[in-house]
Amino acid sequence: MTVQEPRTRAYLDHAATCPMPEPVLHDYVEALRAIGNPSSTHGHGQIAREALERSRETIARALGGDPAETILTSGGTESINTALKGIFWSRRKAGIGPVLLIAEGQHSATNEAAEWLESEQGAEVRWLPTDAEGVLQPAVLAAALAEEGAERVALVSIMWANNEVGSVWPVAELCAVAAACGVPVHVDAVAALGQVPVDFAASGAAALSVSAHKIGGPVGIGALMLGRRTEAMSILHGGSQQRSRSGTQNAAAAVAFARALALVTSGRATPDPARVAHLRRLRDRIVAGVRAAVPDAVLRGSDPAGDEDREQPRRIPANAHFTFPGCQGDSLVFLLDAAGISASVGSACGAGVVRTSHVLRSMGIPEEEAAGALRLTVGAGTTDAEVDALLAALPDAVARARAAGLS
Amino acid sequence: MTVQEPRTRAYLDHAATCPMPEPVLHDYVEALRAIGNPSSTHGHGQIAREALERSRETIARALGGDPAETILTSGGTESINTALKGIFWSRRKAGIGPVLLIAEGQHSATNEAAEWLESEQGAEVRWLPTDAEGVLQPAVLAAALAEEGAERVALVSIMWANNEVGSVWPVAELCAVAAACGVPVHVDAVAALGQVPVDFAASGAAALSVSAHKIGGPVGIGALMLGRRTEAMSILHGGSQQRSRSGTQNAAAAVAFARALALVTSGRATPDPARVAHLRRLRDRIVAGVRAAVPDAVLRGSDPAGDEDREQPRRIPANAHFTFPGCQGDSLVFLLDAAGISASVGSACGAGVVRTSHVLRSMGIPEEEAAGALRLTVGAGTTDAEVDALLAALPDAVARARAAGLS
Repeated sequence: MTVQEPRTRAYLDHAATCPMPEPVLHDYVEALRAIGNPSSTHGHGQIAREALERSRETIARALGGDPAETILTSGGTESINTALKGIFWSRRKAGIGPVLLIAEGQHSATNEAAEWLESEQGAEVRWLPTDAEGVLQPAVLAAALAEEGAERVALVSIMWANNEVGSVWPVAELCAVAAACGVPVHVDAVAALGQVPVDFAASGAAALSVSAHKIGGPVGIGALMLGRRTEAMSILHGGSQQRSRSGTQNAAAAVAFARALALVTSGRATPDPARVAHLRRLRDRIVAGVRAAVPDAVLRGSDPAGDEDREQPRRIPANAHFTFPGCQGDSLVFLLDAAGISASVGSACGAGVVRTSHVLRSMGIPEEEAAGALRLTVGAGTTDAEVDALLAALPDAVARARAAGLS
Repeated sequence: MTVQEPRTRAYLDHAATCPMPEPVLHDYVEALRAIGNPSSTHGHGQIAREALERSRETIARALGGDPAETILTSGGTESINTALKGIFWSRRKAGIGPVLLIAEGQHSATNEAAEWLESEQGAEVRWLPTDAEGVLQPAVLAAALAEEGAERVALVSIMWANNEVGSVWPVAELCAVAAACGVPVHVDAVAALGQVPVDFAASGAAALSVSAHKIGGPVGIGALMLGRRTEAMSILHGGSQQRSRSGTQNAAAAVAFARALALVTSGRATPDPARVAHLRRLRDRIVAGVRAAVPDAVLRGSDPAGDEDREQPRRIPANAHFTFPGCQGDSLVFLLDAAGISASVGSACGAGVVRTSHVLRSMGIPEEEAAGALRLTVGAGTTDAEVDALLAALPDAVARARAAGLS
């Protein structure tokens, strides 16, 4: 198969990574031309430091936090690993634990970090079931906390929005349940950023993880928001450039991350309404078009109807996710790819591995239905023509995938 | 103090971070414009994957390794932390340890990671003394290994070259000593890369860490070379994108790192001779000029005389490091900065913290002499005019620093 020129292809996998908008690239290149390590005390270093700290302020404000709470990391995976491991170790040292309450169906960074803490570091992981939309309900968390007892629980880890099916979780309610027991909550907000209001301070979370490249910033930078009173041991030791994080600070990437955040937010911790409306319109076109073309396709995750009137929508605006009965999702992705459309079975972080999504399994979806998963995610640059191309190619792809499944 | 326009300043702190050459920036920007997560299976993802793997091959070859041994990380700190913690945990699980043999005078990433393993994870750190040039001698390592017994030693960690005083260590001999006992060696080659031949396979090391931004690549990417038979648990768990390392792979930064390495190397694991000659000439001008201007200044680290005829020089070509009797190094840095010259007391990773260098202390240099440290490091873009500016400003800066020290 010849790979088509990428600019002529339809890119409907923004949840895997977003293209970098030109204004972000512009600021990034300008910052990359600067010389100096922000930890150096001389003039070159001071200029890098100023750019870094100005960017940290923008990032903090966009996330509803404070610069002193904003630890810049190498991305979502590092942020999540620092939160889970660092807070677990610090709490264990204070005599609290060893239980981790981890909601099911989360990103592999959360799941694998928790499993490692269990197999190697004495943690006991209790997996909390999510509902049919892939959402952890506060009553489930409350029951688990009551059963374990607060002093045995080192940390709760939840999502702001699921990265595969796009369901938005009741974060403030979940954090309030844990706060009533004095237990810190980490929130994986990687999939929620730029899609729904993500306000660290208002959420009541102790820690929150985001990644730049999911909103048009560069790969290789993210943030861990860590509340002032939350202690987290480092996973990267060294020059102690940041609280809980060592390593040369990436001033240029911080500048680009800040610019990307400024483009997707509008004021403190609020996504830009025009951008959200664009995402929602195209996503709704995909949902309606898929349903018309393939009537037995099942939309997975929360129903977005009425979301435009909710402060916290039930589903992130960029996400459509279907299962197609009788299809293998990887066949669909392959057939759409051959038709010039980039889509995904689920998380790119597990792509290439043939197994059904743990997210769908956690939602109670039977194996044979879960096998036919297809995630379609739009971005600010997505056009109606790309949606048209998808909807034109889909019926044939589904028919062929079904035929392949029968053979 | 008004910060001078950086382009008119002399930058003599290349060991803290190097400017990015235009060809590297060019390739980086082109790669940043591409769309796609290299873990995605569709066309956009495949193009990113190809760029990533092509870059990994270039990086592997430049480091004398194999692509399967080349783990791309977020930088030197992550590489070092993964090597120390990951190999320690894996060896402990195999019943080996708990001793870490760590040479003194290394970078804070090594020292702090080892100390954390000791305080939190049951390691016993034995610090191996270096000599007056800041070098670990093979006989010292051999004696420590004999005393501890091989089965008690999880890991040896050494440097290829010291980041402050620039002394080059006898890496192959040290690795041979450890190999005779079956003990793996990690080598911090961050300061050596691009300066002296760094050949992972030929060295006998089990693991080796480098960072891109020390050679003109971007901040935020580095490599951990990890031998095929060396196991290292992850510090970043998640999608298992790489052996021992999870997290979205940074294809664009890999492209830039590969280009930066191609510019500083000439064939497999060999620094470009013309670049080395340029660095050495300017560094030698600094050494001679400082000695002429301040006769009681003491060059610290190994004597570079005759290095041009050695395959492994005794000192990296970019580094000059002096102590100035009667001066505080931070005063000197401040006064030179006011004169438009960026220099450093020592590692930028500890800059801003007023204490004498642990490297100089490990070399047995008395506190009051160590206090007057100044590191001057040149790069490919350093000009004779910058050296002239340093040599013109230095006598006055030293005189003022001395006067300040007396008051």
